[in-house]
Amino acid sequence: MELLIRVIKQFIKLSAAEESIVKELFTELNLEPGDYLLEEGKICRHVAFINKGLVRYFINNDEEERTMYFSKELEFVCNYTSFLPQTASDKSIQALEPTQLYIISYEKLQRLYREISEGEKFGRLAIEQVFLSAIQQLDSLYTDPPVVRYQQFLAHYPDLIQRIPQYYIASYVGIKPQSLSRIRKRISGRH
Amino acid sequence: MELLIRVIKQFIKLSAAEESIVKELFTELNLEPGDYLLEEGKICRHVAFINKGLVRYFINNDEEERTMYFSKELEFVCNYTSFLPQTASDKSIQALEPTQLYIISYEKLQRLYREISEGEKFGRLAIEQVFLSAIQQLDSLYTDPPVVRYQQFLAHYPDLIQRIPQYYIASYVGIKPQSLSRIRKRISGRH
Repeated sequence: MELLIRVIKQFIKLSAAEESIVKELFTELNLEPGDYLLEEGKICRHVAFINKGLVRYFINNDEEERTMYFSKELEFVCNYTSFLPQTASDKSIQALEPTQLYIISYEKLQRLYREISEGEKFGRLAIEQVFLSAIQQLDSLYTDPPVVRYQQFLAHYPDLIQRIPQYYIASYVGIKPQSLSRIRKRISGRH
Repeated sequence: MELLIRVIKQFIKLSAAEESIVKELFTELNLEPGDYLLEEGKICRHVAFINKGLVRYFINNDEEERTMYFSKELEFVCNYTSFLPQTASDKSIQALEPTQLYIISYEKLQRLYREISEGEKFGRLAIEQVFLSAIQQLDSLYTDPPVVRYQQFLAHYPDLIQRIPQYYIASYVGIKPQSLSRIRKRISGRH
């Protein structure tokens, strides 16, 4: 769990004793591609840290599946709109690669907030980061045309373009796979 | 500032000395209808607590103004995607009524987190609540048809229907004012 400890230490100070508490509170979970971390209709019971791998969040909108965003190694993954109030999730989270996670339950996360001296500060800063990213992506879904969304995807996730099937990227951008091919040709034609 | 103190105490314990610190960190601001708390292109420098009144968040999308959500008395208002990284805002926040706010700057908010014993916990819980509401509204913008959005608006803000001009409600729902009139007739016809 060294990567997780290192990421937490980017937010707060952790004593050696507190590192042990963190390691005790998180549990390893391994997913194969296609496995679900969270299924629509169920309650999101964990926050997960991605040690290795890649997941996508998607929603079923009028029977049509739409990919809303991606999370990769070193990021926290959770549907907070289900996790925080502990109500049924409207989104699913699915692994796209063999994915190694460290997960913490709602109850254990409250313990982390209490038992680590800067636990509450970590909670505030981590949630600020996760929500900022979620809101920026949702705002973009609403305001940016597909070309801009694709260019932003390339800019923010240059390494993911090889790791994600084209139809998921097209769904994320909000267009059909054929239209994505046309956008890609147009962009590469400019170079 | 008794209302603000009461709302903070819903989240955390505050000693009498800490109440004085809170009162010292927040400043009163009064807006007239049409006045801006935040303008697009500027940096969001404050979190504000609405003591009395009503504001709307809006965005300019392809020259067209779109109302994204509303906040009213007893709620915190802030464009966190500008406030947290202290970068230019893509949204504006405008008063719809005479609005009395208590505002706190970015720097003073960091002091509140440090100087109040449960300050960090307050920060975490308050931001959880604000973001939950923001994400639910953004999700709905994306997934729900106008009729559902209007019904949710009625369910969540029954008192606001009299306080907000119809064209802002139509913009929030995502339709033209004429279409909103039709939806309203259809809904009232069912009763």
